[in-house]
Amino acid sequence: MGENEGIDKSFLDTVKFDDRGLVPAIVQDHETGKVLMMAWMNRESLEMTLERRKACYWSRSRNKLWLKGESSGNMQDVHDILIDCDGDTLILKVSQIGGACHVGYHSCFYRRVLENGSMEICDTLMFDPEEVYGKKS
Amino acid sequence: MGENEGIDKSFLDTVKFDDRGLVPAIVQDHETGKVLMMAWMNRESLEMTLERRKACYWSRSRNKLWLKGESSGNMQDVHDILIDCDGDTLILKVSQIGGACHVGYHSCFYRRVLENGSMEICDTLMFDPEEVYGKKS
Repeated sequence: MGENEGIDKSFLDTVKFDDRGLVPAIVQDHETGKVLMMAWMNRESLEMTLERRKACYWSRSRNKLWLKGESSGNMQDVHDILIDCDGDTLILKVSQIGGACHVGYHSCFYRRVLENGSMEICDTLMFDPEEVYGKKS
Repeated sequence: MGENEGIDKSFLDTVKFDDRGLVPAIVQDHETGKVLMMAWMNRESLEMTLERRKACYWSRSRNKLWLKGESSGNMQDVHDILIDCDGDTLILKVSQIGGACHVGYHSCFYRRVLENGSMEICDTLMFDPEEVYGKKS
C-alpha cells in the first residue's frame, strides 16, 4: 500500500471486463457532479471513447456499438475518465448536450424514493422523445 | 410519455434485478456529488438499506450481505435513493464516515487516466488499511 497504489500499469491493462467483456461506466456532469446515466462499455467502445473523446458504449439491447447521441444528437464530450480500486467500474466526466435520458429527462435518474415507498419526479424534462426519436408505432 | 412517467408503481416493484438477482448502486456523497463507489444490492440488502437508512450491499466476492462499514467503521448514512429510467440502476446519496475505499482513499475512483494512457492518483488517502483491516498475511 502507498500513495502510488495501482498506477504502475497502463489504464487499458487495468480495466477488468466481466465475463461478457463489459465494464459499467457511470456518467457524470463534469461541472456539477450530477450523475446522468450508467452504461456498459466493451474494449472497442472504450478505445473509441479514448480516441474521439465522445462517449461510446456497448448497447446490450441492440448488441452493437452505440455512439451516444448518434440518433438524438445528445452527444457527450468526455473530459475525464476515472477507474475504481478493483478496475471493474469507470466514471466518465462529460458535458451533456440536451438530456441524457431517452425518456427526455436531463438524467436517467429522474425518480427518487419517498418514505412511503412510492416515487416522485426529481429532474427536468429537456426534450420530447417523440420529436427526437419519432413516434412509437 | 408525460410528467408522471413511470411513477405509478411502488419503488420496490420498479427495481429490475438482473439474472443473478442483483442491481448496481452508484454511491454518491449527498453534499458534494462526488461518486464514492459502486456496489451491488440484492432485494434483501435493498430492503435492509431502506429500513435502517445505512447502506447495505451484497458482496459478490464473499457471497453474503455486507453492511458497509461493519469491519472498518466507515458506515454510510443514506439520505436519498434514486432509480433510473430502466429500473436497473440505483443511486444512493450518502454521508460517508471516513473513506469508502478499502485501499484507504475517500473514493474508490482515486485514479484518473492521462492522455498518454497511464494513470495518476486524484484523491485523498483517508486511512491506513493495515490499521483498519489488519495486516495481510
